[in-house]
Amino acid sequence: MGGKITILGPGLLGASLGMAVRERGLFTSVQAWSRSPETREKCRRQLWCSKVHETPEAAVADAQLIVLCPPVQAIPALLSQLAEHLPAETLVTDVGSTKASICEAAAKYLPDHVRFVGSHPMAGSEKTGLEHARSDLFEGQACILTPTESSDPECLTTLEDFWSQLGMQVGKASPTEHDQIVAAVSHLPHLLASVLSENLAGMDPAWKTFAGNGLRDTTRVAAGDPHLWRQILEDNSTAISDALNRFTGTMDAFAHALNQADFDQVESSLAKGKSFRDSLG
Amino acid sequence: MGGKITILGPGLLGASLGMAVRERGLFTSVQAWSRSPETREKCRRQLWCSKVHETPEAAVADAQLIVLCPPVQAIPALLSQLAEHLPAETLVTDVGSTKASICEAAAKYLPDHVRFVGSHPMAGSEKTGLEHARSDLFEGQACILTPTESSDPECLTTLEDFWSQLGMQVGKASPTEHDQIVAAVSHLPHLLASVLSENLAGMDPAWKTFAGNGLRDTTRVAAGDPHLWRQILEDNSTAISDALNRFTGTMDAFAHALNQADFDQVESSLAKGKSFRDSLG
Repeated sequence: MGGKITILGPGLLGASLGMAVRERGLFTSVQAWSRSPETREKCRRQLWCSKVHETPEAAVADAQLIVLCPPVQAIPALLSQLAEHLPAETLVTDVGSTKASICEAAAKYLPDHVRFVGSHPMAGSEKTGLEHARSDLFEGQACILTPTESSDPECLTTLEDFWSQLGMQVGKASPTEHDQIVAAVSHLPHLLASVLSENLAGMDPAWKTFAGNGLRDTTRVAAGDPHLWRQILEDNSTAISDALNRFTGTMDAFAHALNQADFDQVESSLAKGKSFRDSLG
Repeated sequence: MGGKITILGPGLLGASLGMAVRERGLFTSVQAWSRSPETREKCRRQLWCSKVHETPEAAVADAQLIVLCPPVQAIPALLSQLAEHLPAETLVTDVGSTKASICEAAAKYLPDHVRFVGSHPMAGSEKTGLEHARSDLFEGQACILTPTESSDPECLTTLEDFWSQLGMQVGKASPTEHDQIVAAVSHLPHLLASVLSENLAGMDPAWKTFAGNGLRDTTRVAAGDPHLWRQILEDNSTAISDALNRFTGTMDAFAHALNQADFDQVESSLAKGKSFRDSLG
């Protein structure tokens, strides 16, 4: 794509993005800004980082693509802060795990000449921070773009190309539909893993010795940063409550079959679950 | 240990056991019997298998160690069938995922001279069958032995040595305590993964495109064999119901905090979950 990309708030995702675009030579300059002086200092020692700015306003000047990567709840305020500083013709996107509130903030704060489309690259891990960044983090993973009626089609096409060049499978959804999708396929599974881990924290500690790979896999995401996930759950609480209610309905039916010793029904549920899981590959 | 080991009902666990003891040269002969003619035929082509028998009675003659590896609900009947054919001095164990009903069957059917202690090597995967056997399946995994008051201490020590030689971390619990432990650390996680998968099977199929590693990990065990897991849930239904009730209590408190927008409480739950998950390693 050439020119300059600016990464605001480089943590796991932002720094991985920096590495990935540097490795592929997609931009001539990869610039960064972080609110934290420690992270700015770390960025100065990163090979992918051409220049570190002291303010976000300075970082976005002359950029062809600006990617907002801070925790989700910090994104609307950053959009507001930068609104008058974003150059026309620049593409602006973010990597937040929720999209409705961020796209609403973009519509509210950004002048008409700023071209914004939200992105959700569904890459990451239970580890956070620049230290765990990897240039192949995005490869083979899904990315959801969330255009609205006012989005510039050319901006959307450019962003589709951008994430595709990082190896992602790019799809599209409205911001609201996006939030419903991730409530089901990401936030609900995270919540269940966390609640299971919280629940098992109350058992005899000696029992942990007998944890196998099944428990490790099932609860892996519960090792994620509680503060980051609190923000995601807070920001997407309506869609998550809906997904949780649907789950509770399935759970109640399963528990009923178990308590009634209706094991044909139990096996039928297990078979439906297997069929879905097998289809994920 | 020398002599002959007999593996009854070789599937994933039994065939992996055959490979592992053969690789380590623990026995001079590794013999097998399966109820299924097809599996007996497959065993004849396995390098680990010295001899395949047509009947379990023939397979157990002259064995130093007999390991029962069929699905859990088939084990009591097999113990009953073999009771009068098990040589004195022979050690008998099984690899069933539940222990109370199996140890009760052993106490009920086996003559006093037969030395039985239940084993639960907590190795396996969502894949089943001889085809997926691996000689390193047991390495680094936990194994729970379930001696009772009438167990021969020497038999227990020999079995501890046996599983340790396959690389397992061996622990002990009463059959009832074992069933409570695995209800918490294995059966409940499996059940939640299955119910989550069943629940998500009802969503828009297009949403599956956006499944990431988090969902894949969280639901991996749901790909397990529904019929095998039905037996485990049926056999251990009391302990599983108890574990599920405790989980539901934690879940209800979490859902309440979410619905009340008490995100300090939500974050506190997430932090407890993370702390437990981090402690699993």
